Amino acid sequence: MVLDLFSPTVQHTLDLIGIFVFAISGALLAVRKNFDVFGIAVLAEATALGGGIFRDIVIGATPPAAFTDLGYFSMPLVAAVLVFFLHPQVERINGAVNVFDAAGLGLFCVTGTTKAYGYGLGLTSSVALGLATAVGGGVIRDVIANEVPSLVRWDRDLYAVPALAGASMVAVCLHLDALNALTSGIAAVATFLLRLLALRYHWRAPRAWNRRTSTVEVE
Amino acid sequence: MVLDLFSPTVQHTLDLIGIFVFAISGALLAVRKNFDVFGIAVLAEATALGGGIFRDIVIGATPPAAFTDLGYFSMPLVAAVLVFFLHPQVERINGAVNVFDAAGLGLFCVTGTTKAYGYGLGLTSSVALGLATAVGGGVIRDVIANEVPSLVRWDRDLYAVPALAGASMVAVCLHLDALNALTSGIAAVATFLLRLLALRYHWRAPRAWNRRTSTVEVE
Amino acid sequence: MVLDLFSPTVQHTLDLIGIFVFAISGALLAVRKNFDVFGIAVLAEATALGGGIFRDIVIGATPPAAFTDLGYFSMPLVAAVLVFFLHPQVERINGAVNVFDAAGLGLFCVTGTTKAYGYGLGLTSSVALGLATAVGGGVIRDVIANEVPSLVRWDRDLYAVPALAGASMVAVCLHLDALNALTSGIAAVATFLLRLLALRYHWRAPRAWNRRTSTVEVE
Repeated sequence: MVLDLFSPTVQHTLDLIGIFVFAISGALLAVRKNFDVFGIAVLAEATALGGGIFRDIVIGATPPAAFTDLGYFSMPLVAAVLVFFLHPQVERINGAVNVFDAAGLGLFCVTGTTKAYGYGLGLTSSVALGLATAVGGGVIRDVIANEVPSLVRWDRDLYAVPALAGASMVAVCLHLDALNALTSGIAAVATFLLRLLALRYHWRAPRAWNRRTSTVEVE
Repeated sequence: MVLDLFSPTVQHTLDLIGIFVFAISGALLAVRKNFDVFGIAVLAEATALGGGIFRDIVIGATPPAAFTDLGYFSMPLVAAVLVFFLHPQVERINGAVNVFDAAGLGLFCVTGTTKAYGYGLGLTSSVALGLATAVGGGVIRDVIANEVPSLVRWDRDLYAVPALAGASMVAVCLHLDALNALTSGIAAVATFLLRLLALRYHWRAPRAWNRRTSTVEVE
Repeated sequence: MVLDLFSPTVQHTLDLIGIFVFAISGALLAVRKNFDVFGIAVLAEATALGGGIFRDIVIGATPPAAFTDLGYFSMPLVAAVLVFFLHPQVERINGAVNVFDAAGLGLFCVTGTTKAYGYGLGLTSSVALGLATAVGGGVIRDVIANEVPSLVRWDRDLYAVPALAGASMVAVCLHLDALNALTSGIAAVATFLLRLLALRYHWRAPRAWNRRTSTVEVE
């Protein structure tokens, strides 16, 4: 059973927004890497749907929602067309893209955790899959673009931590049997705000202790 | 239910040919990248079977055909051995390899779309999975070889478009209930010819509009 | 049915040790690549669990064991914390890490082959999946770290061959209906020793014959 947190329409609209903003980030990287128009579409699709497809395959929910809901599939194409024509303008509102991406992060970690739990996984595994749903698309994006995933780089603002916090809040609510539209909304908003704060104040995670200077620098 | 377009023997033979030519392209890249003999075999297997394995996992057809049909599994090993000993000769007939690869592309986009539809996916999703079957192996090949996938590079001749055209023709035939050996053969041949024309006349897809010169060049 | 080779406790302990040592290798690469603490944890998890998750998804055993057994999931986090604080010391005992990694290789190729066969795959496919279980995590580790997988590089000591030998021994035992704790233990130890010998004497696999000097060098 999949928990219905919100009315189906609200849930679906939120999903589509999350997919759209993740697709924008994929399409922008594709433009920066000089891909052709089909490469832009491929990277938009992979970024937006990759995390959810991984989650659905792991929990055995095949075919994944990305292949049964035409809206999920179409959204990244819209984003790709938009970025194809308007990428200088989209780049200029980079701050806005980051805000939307943070919203997608908050949304996906909540829905990912909830869906995994609904398919019978334990709380810890559900948190892990919620995190994977939220950050997986970005890792796939960077792997296809032949870059070190920004998720694991020390010189990027915290990304996994807000999603981990949000997924953990959902798990606590599930444990207390207190997950509903309000509490999951709070978890999504908390993730969103944490990510914005990390961006605003450049919060970063430490690298390994006592790093020698001879370690390879990831440029 | 999986649609049987051709007699099982014909279908199987065509599949084996497609797998073989894709494996050749993987093995040749492995030689160029200086991999050892096991790396050549690994890249041949991943290139030839990766797209189909992804499709089968997504539609829930586990274990994938690549793991239940010994012929599918053995073909890339034959290709790897051949390239290991004869790669200068194989390189010299690069044109021939491209022709075979185009044949594999045509075949895989048709069978991938048909199989996905047979497992209950919608027409659009079936086209997407047909495309993924045809081009997925090449993306996995390039990711393992640590290169930007040639699928998304602007400086490569059209590859996704012919497969997309072929998969779409299959979808139209499915919609009209007119898919049979003849029409799917036509779709495969059309894909094949489109790809050959793209190679011959260096058809390329445009990059994003108004690219600034400061974009990172993918060398 | 999954074959029970050892008592559940022994089997589980061996699995945890294998996961732990693979996680150490992932965490060490993350430190070398200058990842932050979350990147270290991500790479430890992906290295340790990636091969098994791939196997379980392919054979249809969803959700994969990595998501149902909390011990499997926690072990890489322990390894990540350890490497985070003590990586200079862990590096210094690199020989010890290689020994443990060889033990993990032996263990995983045996359990992977056995599990795949228990889910109804043929002997050849079971060997392929046993090999994938043992070496898959390392390939995922190197792909995320944006490096050419050490599995396919000619300048690395034999890694796939010992695992292939071990998986094949298991397959022969399965064919002869002679797989038990003793024979599978022998297969694991043989893999372990072969890998140690390959490390000790720098056994390497050949590259393609007649390589021209103009081939791209993988640095």
